[in-house]
Amino acid sequence: MLKEITGGIAAPKGFTAAGVKAGLKKSGKEDVALIYSSIPAAAAAVFTQNTMAAAPVIVSREVADKGQASAIVINSGCANACTGEQGLIDAKAMAHITAAALNVPDDQVLIASTGIIGVTLPMDKLETGIKQAAKALSTDGAKNATLAIMTTDTFPKSCAYEFELAGKKVRIAGIAKGSGMIHPNMATMLSCITTDAAVAAPVLKKALTDAVNVSFNMVTVDGDTSTNDTLAVLANGAAENPVIERAEGAAYETFAAALKEICIYLAKQVAHDGEGATKFLEVTVKGAVDFTDAKTAAMAIAKSPLVKTAFFGQDPNWGRILCAVGYSGAKSQPETATLSIGGITIVKKGLGASFDEQALRAVMAEHDISVTVDLGQGSATATVWTCDFSYEYVKINGEYHT
Amino acid sequence: MLKEITGGIAAPKGFTAAGVKAGLKKSGKEDVALIYSSIPAAAAAVFTQNTMAAAPVIVSREVADKGQASAIVINSGCANACTGEQGLIDAKAMAHITAAALNVPDDQVLIASTGIIGVTLPMDKLETGIKQAAKALSTDGAKNATLAIMTTDTFPKSCAYEFELAGKKVRIAGIAKGSGMIHPNMATMLSCITTDAAVAAPVLKKALTDAVNVSFNMVTVDGDTSTNDTLAVLANGAAENPVIERAEGAAYETFAAALKEICIYLAKQVAHDGEGATKFLEVTVKGAVDFTDAKTAAMAIAKSPLVKTAFFGQDPNWGRILCAVGYSGAKSQPETATLSIGGITIVKKGLGASFDEQALRAVMAEHDISVTVDLGQGSATATVWTCDFSYEYVKINGEYHT
Repeated sequence: MLKEITGGIAAPKGFTAAGVKAGLKKSGKEDVALIYSSIPAAAAAVFTQNTMAAAPVIVSREVADKGQASAIVINSGCANACTGEQGLIDAKAMAHITAAALNVPDDQVLIASTGIIGVTLPMDKLETGIKQAAKALSTDGAKNATLAIMTTDTFPKSCAYEFELAGKKVRIAGIAKGSGMIHPNMATMLSCITTDAAVAAPVLKKALTDAVNVSFNMVTVDGDTSTNDTLAVLANGAAENPVIERAEGAAYETFAAALKEICIYLAKQVAHDGEGATKFLEVTVKGAVDFTDAKTAAMAIAKSPLVKTAFFGQDPNWGRILCAVGYSGAKSQPETATLSIGGITIVKKGLGASFDEQALRAVMAEHDISVTVDLGQGSATATVWTCDFSYEYVKINGEYHT
Repeated sequence: MLKEITGGIAAPKGFTAAGVKAGLKKSGKEDVALIYSSIPAAAAAVFTQNTMAAAPVIVSREVADKGQASAIVINSGCANACTGEQGLIDAKAMAHITAAALNVPDDQVLIASTGIIGVTLPMDKLETGIKQAAKALSTDGAKNATLAIMTTDTFPKSCAYEFELAGKKVRIAGIAKGSGMIHPNMATMLSCITTDAAVAAPVLKKALTDAVNVSFNMVTVDGDTSTNDTLAVLANGAAENPVIERAEGAAYETFAAALKEICIYLAKQVAHDGEGATKFLEVTVKGAVDFTDAKTAAMAIAKSPLVKTAFFGQDPNWGRILCAVGYSGAKSQPETATLSIGGITIVKKGLGASFDEQALRAVMAEHDISVTVDLGQGSATATVWTCDFSYEYVKINGEYHT
């Protein structure tokens, strides 16, 4: 139903993007991204629940609450987190500088930062960078914008699709940066989605929340929820479909499904690029009494260092997986638990089953592995995405020195 | 107030112990431990909350509920977990064989197992071992008993103390095996405490629960709660102090304090011996609104792979510590958060403080490190013990193959 298209985050009509080198990253790579809609867009966003939320999160929450924005500016290299009063002043200045350069009101600019915690923004460099980015805005700017939000991600994460909405061609695109507090002291997940669909802000927020609950909220790398997590979506209506005013009906369902698909795609990309990952794990728990229980059990499996190191070692260690389910808090009992890896059933009713060991070895040797646990307690299902725990994870996070 | 004495788990009057080699461990080392009280003792125990609880846990729960026992038999090498009906039959047989050998009723024998999950007990070897152990019981048997409950612990964990109770000399002793699901597929924490104090069973249970909540329940290595965790205490009254009938008064307070101290000692030993540990971390959270909040925040810090790898790398990464507090769910805010490592304050009111970097480097280079966070929200405090996350942890858990 969704057709992949080129153009990345700037593919939807009315959007332009840019990524420039402002010198915030020691590496000298792109570190300021700007995404702009020539038409004020309906805006919705979700943010970290961390009580140590960074200054840009506090500022962007206010903008998102108003439901309208024209631009998103993102810097990497400095998270502007744990920076107190000065951090808030800098975050507001970051929005103001962007607004002035684009000639839009300050409260129409969403901001996000990722990078070192506890250090204030180098505002002179940032101001120069934002002004450069504003000049560089173009429909070809997606690639640089995607590069500019990366920290130690090993590959850029971007996608763009076209689909039909009430007879109109509509485009939706997204970019994301990786999960895990990627580099020591680095803050985590940032994502931005643009669409030229016409959607009322409250409806956009509802669709975004539903999409996040089955995508980004189902990803874990190390269980550490950062201070800066931000996901923002702008819908500028340039596609001229009849405005979706209510969270119901065919048009809404079509749009919500597209948004969900793009969020799941980006979320899985984030898990794929988890710190030191050598495996991508899709953990599905079914037969739970409700979704919360299913998610709780799936997350316990996906977060367990014992399970993650077992997959790194390509060991189908079902004792650890059942053990994680057992302590998760989800309603479960051995007698009704079934477990399969890569479609091969290895546990039936809590007991080891006989299976083709060679086939299972082959499954464990693959990069993408599915784990399915049927709790046999009900009919609810949840799927979580994660990666394994490798020496590289310890290296990335242990060998760094501040 | 407690005087260290020799004799280990068999030091309290009326107790004997033994540890024998029954061939359950591939290594051929001691793998069956027996602890016996010639006088039926008041018994209390706490067990894993894991819904996949192993068969021995199910059997011992019933014995502990009756509040009396004469012996504890423990095997290593096989956890008898995820073994279904056969596992229960074997566990009951394990108790019966021990009871017959000691000429006591079946329901006076507590049992525990640790080792491989999903494999049934080799009952022939176990029976031979239990009979050997019954013959070998002596006041000098503590050392072998302590060795017999170890799996891949790097050192035995044992202690024995003497103290005054209502004018009588009383002895209390304990042994434990290490934390983390130590070896792949191995089940975790086992501990046994003996005392010749005279304490009514319900009072013993109360004292044990209180002690566990500030000791074993405050230890985390990898956050994985095993299927076999068991802590049992036997009080046989051989010291002839007036029986402690109620959980109040000077005698109770004295006994409860001693039990608490021994549990904390053993719990810290377990954290010291965490998988691949190169550091022992004592994480204290104070200024919390209540104990639950304090423990929640301290556990979030102690469980965070990012924090644990930072300590492995000897990096005082305060951003990660505050971040963990922030997502823990405990009431907190940057403006009131203070953080010190090894007594050196590095964060004041959520902002990086200036400190003697050389002194902090010295602290980070030590093996035992204290981390203290003051949330500035209330007056409750909690202390959690853990270890760091090293390459060795990944090696132990990742390189093993079933």
